[in-house]
Amino acid sequence: MLPDKVNLDLSLIAARLEGLEETIIYKLLDRAQFCLNARIYEPGKSGFLGEERRSLFEIRLRMQEQMDAQFGRFMVPEERPFTGELPPSRRSVSLPDTGLRLEKYDVVNLCGPIMAAYRDLLRRLCPAGDDGQYGSGVEHDVYALQAIGRRVHYGALYVGESKFRDDPGKFSALVDKNDSSALLAALTRQEVENAIIARVRVKAAAIQAQANKIVRQIIDPEIIVAFYRDAVIPLTKEGEVLYLKNRKR
Amino acid sequence: MLPDKVNLDLSLIAARLEGLEETIIYKLLDRAQFCLNARIYEPGKSGFLGEERRSLFEIRLRMQEQMDAQFGRFMVPEERPFTGELPPSRRSVSLPDTGLRLEKYDVVNLCGPIMAAYRDLLRRLCPAGDDGQYGSGVEHDVYALQAIGRRVHYGALYVGESKFRDDPGKFSALVDKNDSSALLAALTRQEVENAIIARVRVKAAAIQAQANKIVRQIIDPEIIVAFYRDAVIPLTKEGEVLYLKNRKR
Repeated sequence: MLPDKVNLDLSLIAARLEGLEETIIYKLLDRAQFCLNARIYEPGKSGFLGEERRSLFEIRLRMQEQMDAQFGRFMVPEERPFTGELPPSRRSVSLPDTGLRLEKYDVVNLCGPIMAAYRDLLRRLCPAGDDGQYGSGVEHDVYALQAIGRRVHYGALYVGESKFRDDPGKFSALVDKNDSSALLAALTRQEVENAIIARVRVKAAAIQAQANKIVRQIIDPEIIVAFYRDAVIPLTKEGEVLYLKNRKR
Repeated sequence: MLPDKVNLDLSLIAARLEGLEETIIYKLLDRAQFCLNARIYEPGKSGFLGEERRSLFEIRLRMQEQMDAQFGRFMVPEERPFTGELPPSRRSVSLPDTGLRLEKYDVVNLCGPIMAAYRDLLRRLCPAGDDGQYGSGVEHDVYALQAIGRRVHYGALYVGESKFRDDPGKFSALVDKNDSSALLAALTRQEVENAIIARVRVKAAAIQAQANKIVRQIIDPEIIVAFYRDAVIPLTKEGEVLYLKNRKR
């Protein structure tokens, strides 16, 4: 998803983050067409031959990431895996010079809290109950999670690096002091966050504007707005802090 | 994707088909964010370890369907596979009484012509050239194809059965005469097709209305309209004919 040469100009990074918004909204709206189907998240109730312990959701996520790993997905900095023990890539992925200064991309892996926030979101996003569409439910969960993960990690890594370059002295000093809350404050631009939130609200409404309410589950844009405000944005900043703390000098 | 008991009322089937439109449009728009990347469709140029003959696209489609097969996807009538030699399902899928009268769902498998139409569409949908995003290109191809396949086969099977039930005498006679063109004419409702096309045009515009043209590739709705008019709708009707010719008495 990166151009040949990464430009660490903050406005370009912000534009790229903006371009990922539609994809996240599409995938959340598609998941919302199915009931919550709580059973798919329960360990040991997958009904999947040879899998006694895991939930159907975990099995699907793991198999998807095992496939994706073979295609080289996790060689891309912003594609962080939710599961472990993944096979090596079977193709070479030509990455541009990312400009990132990390020993190992997985030191910035927010998949745990992304997962928790997503699972919590599902209770508001999906109709309650069980429609038996377990396969479709877990399929759309995985696609939504991957889109959210890409956005959070892209922001964490590239916004982190870009802001550092903008004022290396200030950020180095805060890292040296190991002052996470001061780092977080230095990384925060409230007016930018407000603009993102306003934009997501407008898009979530516009994307659904022509849908037939009888055949499509229509989602209150505020549900997606709250997820951006309470999860996507703060987790991205948490990732920026992690990035800066682990950035190679 | 089916309710517990399938209702073969034509207006309900049409509503379900309408609900699938958003998903198709979302997935086409997401694919359009990447260049055509012609190399990913060339056999023998996958760069995928252990795969000398196939294209990267074919490898991805095959692996996706092998995973999906284990989750029982192809036990659902409208989910027809593009590839063959698939593993058995590892879970039991509870299907409602579909009301369909087919010995084997795969006698109505339009995946060949769907694939041809999609590959042709790509040249209009995607920016020309090569952005190196091969993994993302094939990933989005597979998701778009699955959404299109679901829509075409759902229509073929359920619209076919519903129309048959509406006038069994007429359709049985046409099947007995083996008169495909008369069957096609009897299945055609031009005003319904026109309404679908008009709706797709409006949706394709509305879904993109708030996207930032600088960061998202905006697709002329007419490209998607033409695909519906020239591929989705005629292939669905071709599938209805196939369904009726193979329908068990």
